[in-house]
Amino acid sequence: MTALKSFASDNNSGAHPAIMEAVVRANQGDLKSYGDDEISINTDEVLKEYFGSRARIHYVTTGTAANVLGIRAVTHTYNSVLCAAQAHINNDECGAPEAFGGIKLVPIPSPDGKLTPGMIAPYLGHVGFVHASQPRVVSITQPTEVGKLYTLKEIEDIVEFAHDRDLLVHMDGARIANACAALDCSFFDMTTALDIDFLSFGGTKNGCLMSEAVIFLNPEIGQGFPYLRKQAMQLVSKMRFVSAQLDAYLTDDLWLKNARQANAMARRLAEKAGAVEGVEIKGTVDCNALFAHLPTEATDILLKKYYFYVWDEHDNTVRWMTSWATTEEMVDEFVEDIKKAMEAVA
Amino acid sequence: MTALKSFASDNNSGAHPAIMEAVVRANQGDLKSYGDDEISINTDEVLKEYFGSRARIHYVTTGTAANVLGIRAVTHTYNSVLCAAQAHINNDECGAPEAFGGIKLVPIPSPDGKLTPGMIAPYLGHVGFVHASQPRVVSITQPTEVGKLYTLKEIEDIVEFAHDRDLLVHMDGARIANACAALDCSFFDMTTALDIDFLSFGGTKNGCLMSEAVIFLNPEIGQGFPYLRKQAMQLVSKMRFVSAQLDAYLTDDLWLKNARQANAMARRLAEKAGAVEGVEIKGTVDCNALFAHLPTEATDILLKKYYFYVWDEHDNTVRWMTSWATTEEMVDEFVEDIKKAMEAVA
Amino acid sequence: MTALKSFASDNNSGAHPAIMEAVVRANQGDLKSYGDDEISINTDEVLKEYFGSRARIHYVTTGTAANVLGIRAVTHTYNSVLCAAQAHINNDECGAPEAFGGIKLVPIPSPDGKLTPGMIAPYLGHVGFVHASQPRVVSITQPTEVGKLYTLKEIEDIVEFAHDRDLLVHMDGARIANACAALDCSFFDMTTALDIDFLSFGGTKNGCLMSEAVIFLNPEIGQGFPYLRKQAMQLVSKMRFVSAQLDAYLTDDLWLKNARQANAMARRLAEKAGAVEGVEIKGTVDCNALFAHLPTEATDILLKKYYFYVWDEHDNTVRWMTSWATTEEMVDEFVEDIKKAMEAVA
Amino acid sequence: MTALKSFASDNNSGAHPAIMEAVVRANQGDLKSYGDDEISINTDEVLKEYFGSRARIHYVTTGTAANVLGIRAVTHTYNSVLCAAQAHINNDECGAPEAFGGIKLVPIPSPDGKLTPGMIAPYLGHVGFVHASQPRVVSITQPTEVGKLYTLKEIEDIVEFAHDRDLLVHMDGARIANACAALDCSFFDMTTALDIDFLSFGGTKNGCLMSEAVIFLNPEIGQGFPYLRKQAMQLVSKMRFVSAQLDAYLTDDLWLKNARQANAMARRLAEKAGAVEGVEIKGTVDCNALFAHLPTEATDILLKKYYFYVWDEHDNTVRWMTSWATTEEMVDEFVEDIKKAMEAVA
Repeated sequence: MTALKSFASDNNSGAHPAIMEAVVRANQGDLKSYGDDEISINTDEVLKEYFGSRARIHYVTTGTAANVLGIRAVTHTYNSVLCAAQAHINNDECGAPEAFGGIKLVPIPSPDGKLTPGMIAPYLGHVGFVHASQPRVVSITQPTEVGKLYTLKEIEDIVEFAHDRDLLVHMDGARIANACAALDCSFFDMTTALDIDFLSFGGTKNGCLMSEAVIFLNPEIGQGFPYLRKQAMQLVSKMRFVSAQLDAYLTDDLWLKNARQANAMARRLAEKAGAVEGVEIKGTVDCNALFAHLPTEATDILLKKYYFYVWDEHDNTVRWMTSWATTEEMVDEFVEDIKKAMEAVA
Repeated sequence: MTALKSFASDNNSGAHPAIMEAVVRANQGDLKSYGDDEISINTDEVLKEYFGSRARIHYVTTGTAANVLGIRAVTHTYNSVLCAAQAHINNDECGAPEAFGGIKLVPIPSPDGKLTPGMIAPYLGHVGFVHASQPRVVSITQPTEVGKLYTLKEIEDIVEFAHDRDLLVHMDGARIANACAALDCSFFDMTTALDIDFLSFGGTKNGCLMSEAVIFLNPEIGQGFPYLRKQAMQLVSKMRFVSAQLDAYLTDDLWLKNARQANAMARRLAEKAGAVEGVEIKGTVDCNALFAHLPTEATDILLKKYYFYVWDEHDNTVRWMTSWATTEEMVDEFVEDIKKAMEAVA
Repeated sequence: MTALKSFASDNNSGAHPAIMEAVVRANQGDLKSYGDDEISINTDEVLKEYFGSRARIHYVTTGTAANVLGIRAVTHTYNSVLCAAQAHINNDECGAPEAFGGIKLVPIPSPDGKLTPGMIAPYLGHVGFVHASQPRVVSITQPTEVGKLYTLKEIEDIVEFAHDRDLLVHMDGARIANACAALDCSFFDMTTALDIDFLSFGGTKNGCLMSEAVIFLNPEIGQGFPYLRKQAMQLVSKMRFVSAQLDAYLTDDLWLKNARQANAMARRLAEKAGAVEGVEIKGTVDCNALFAHLPTEATDILLKKYYFYVWDEHDNTVRWMTSWATTEEMVDEFVEDIKKAMEAVA
Repeated sequence: MTALKSFASDNNSGAHPAIMEAVVRANQGDLKSYGDDEISINTDEVLKEYFGSRARIHYVTTGTAANVLGIRAVTHTYNSVLCAAQAHINNDECGAPEAFGGIKLVPIPSPDGKLTPGMIAPYLGHVGFVHASQPRVVSITQPTEVGKLYTLKEIEDIVEFAHDRDLLVHMDGARIANACAALDCSFFDMTTALDIDFLSFGGTKNGCLMSEAVIFLNPEIGQGFPYLRKQAMQLVSKMRFVSAQLDAYLTDDLWLKNARQANAMARRLAEKAGAVEGVEIKGTVDCNALFAHLPTEATDILLKKYYFYVWDEHDNTVRWMTSWATTEEMVDEFVEDIKKAMEAVA
């Protein structure tokens, strides 16, 4: 087995050793199934320390499940969900919200994946009009699918705007740790304190094997979720192996260290690669994703050794992504190879 | 953390050490996501050695997902699926087939969960009648939900009957290993050789953490499955951690050793507990589940120390289930406690 | 165009002239669409006179729509609906409840299609158990699919039993008029007075062109129905042509006269055909359907001139059904032909 | 009952007398149900004369049903349907495609509701990428929701583009008659000759009571539709009353006369109202819808007597729509009132 040299996705990384150890440690004798075990019950309590005592936590195995089931639990099929056009729920889940939730998505164009009240407002007509899906949820991704961050104030504005209109706010937090690390705030600051109604809390991309959670913060929503999760094929029998991951993830600030490492490596790559003649880093690097222009020929050379995505063939943009497992050495080696590739095509 | 003394379900056990080691071993550096990694690709090949070169294998994380998605991939919503009334898909998946597949189940009464052509035939009318769901799949569980086994010949008869009527045959093989161990046959003998069209292949209950697969044997069905799995929220990003489990499971006959252990412990428990005055073991013990009559008062005493299910309150039946992790010592201790309980209530 | 001589179904009849006249009369100039017209609003009021002032009425065009949408409006996908195995929703709607509502049906065996609390009780286990669909609705058909009647007391008992267990009661009233005529009671007596929660109110089979309604009597359910009906493709734009039918249907007791005629003709047929040597009428004739045994050869002769269904080939049972449009002459001619057919095969 | 003075929608009109007569005429004695009657079978043949002998015709009662069921019959849930953002299926069906078909819509911005190959192309990436819904259908509306027309050549270009990419083309022809009348072509010219794969054929807006059809022209698609229609609650039992409408509609060019009248009245209104000082007709009037700017105060005066929609409050745009039932006198009276209103607010 040959490990990839990947700057493609934080999904390419394995699991952090401390999380793997927790999984191994969870493997002790018989325990109750389906989340009634001590590990899962304890992890619930740990998560409540982060999200507040009223949080209700439900573990699932994929980010798609977290997004779709969370949203489904709070909507009727005649509701609609407003999201950025490039949102993961709209673009990258093979129609899961529609097919498995009967959910109408209303995609709002946004270059950086961020929404504002002003961008949402035009899509809120037809309330009470029986021919139109009735808006019920605003879904935001933090950080967005292109690695951009909402400030806490920006989120607060969206929540206020939404709540004034009887809309719920969902946060797709598949990479929420990277956002909190970048903004130097806690999960609580980012969600509960801002009155976010429910979120998809991601662990997998930041060091878990596969562990995500739907977290309801608003006490009035999501009551039937346990049945829904079972029905949606997401109730893992040996749940301890999912919950134990998040327990370790939240111990000794592992989540934060991992996210800081990923973010720092992206900045390092941006600075060093951006300094290479002919390479242009697009925009700011808020978290652990960056976008670069470089000549197609240089990209082709790099792709022989490295794994990453050409984001837009038309303007020679590539996406590079770092993870908790990316090291300074890996970045520096990559930058060296970028230099060589650029020289080769100069 | 206090381990349970469980005779409740093979789901209460942890993972076999060899499987856990494989998961740990899979945690090496970056690999491609979503099943494009070497481990997953290699495990596909391993499974083909067991199920034949035409088998197409798709990993999922729960048995519910395996059942629902396999069936959904081969049915239109106007089709129906014939199954025993007590089938897992009918009774234990919180309506998943209906809600997430639009699937009409036709439950056929069967005390031991087994079907025969004669039991199925009366439900096959109305072919071509637009008001009636059109039968498309016969789903059998091997072993059944109450631990009974079809002989290979019985399965062969159902397949022949079904194929003569243009019906597909699905096997819910959540515990297929226990069945193969009991009947002393291979997975191939039990499925491919009998012309089963597709199956849910279970690993979790027999020693994995969470690893199941939908396996299509009939080359003409299930073409769109990869999209369907993604859409159904079951495409795990770090797939290596799922597939590595099955690789280890199939190495050095681990699956068989585990299943034999579970089955042997059930027989041991049946023999020893059945010899206790006042305890009656119901019927034969084909695999790793057994049902016993004993006085309610004795059950209540045992439940203070052990975890198992009262199956039917009306006739004082309990279900006891063993697993790969059940030892002779555990059985013998349990039998001793059964004796004591019976004496206490005598 | 040659009219059938049909004893097959009350669906084979056309529309009563008074109802057709109402449709023609509704065709006056422009009116608002989608039920906001005066005719529909007025018909709502007429229906409230029959079902009570709290009734909420929603018109649809098929009985399948009435059943599926009514039930869907009051259930989560993790709920189940208990019904007789031979219920229309289970047998004759091509899987619509499952496919378009994600509804889990729990079919209860019943030879005459009637349920009792005692028959329902065994299916109510597993409340709060996340693996099992949670019972929410008991659906009864009055009269049943084989023409049998619940007494008012029998319905009352089911409602009491259901409400005690937090279950709603749905009545499939596709032929409710025939039931009321037979039991000599009003719609109110049959539904609102018995605390039925919601019903499918049928007009089509008893003289309308196509007009059915979902009627919610329980004020706490069905709130989002207008959106659901639109989404379910059942919001007819020129609604006046649907509602006008029910207005006429309820004027001058037309519904009652029609139903009495249908019932009377069934009784007449039962008496006269039952008196023919070799013909046996099975059971009582409660409404407008009857079942008869006669030799296959006689059936074959009759089918050359008449249209009706062979109900069960194995025991030579045929179903005969009368409608509002069946006349004494039609019955008598049919009986004469039955006699001749029986003589021919004697 | 007071008829509206409506310029709001062609849905506000009643039925054409000839069509109502056909419905009355269809009310003769017993006929088979569910479309097996002579009237429906005959109407099938009539429609084949218009759409070609390979056309397969299925009647439904609403345009929403025609759109959703046609599309659903040719898609997997992991497919997507490309349409204009303002398409009826995206905007005006309360999420029916998503909820009742599991269909992913990809809305493409288009001011006049028309698509071109160039507008569609950017949305066709990710073929074979398991995370993305796979494009399968391009849906166009002719005329569009704002009354604009594709030329036959424009449609031909879309079809060629789509078929080259293995996409099917659906035409939402709720008002196809108005389009054919305006372009002076036949239904065949507009659909079959251009290789359209399937269409929603509308009758209701142009003089029927409620009669629409899903028509499959491509012989390789839509095979299971009869089951799907039944399951989708759209199989009307007394189908003759639906099909008879279309028979009359297609007799003696009634469809064409009606559509020409509606179109002519829209042009008349555009010309005469456009000549009123201060009133501006926006763009061309292709069919029977027109959009006008006039002062809010004038609109308010008119709304006291007439029924029509304010389309955009921000720029004082109103929509006026004519129908087969609109007369020169009605237009002229309306124009007089427009003049008065404008003078009053001058």
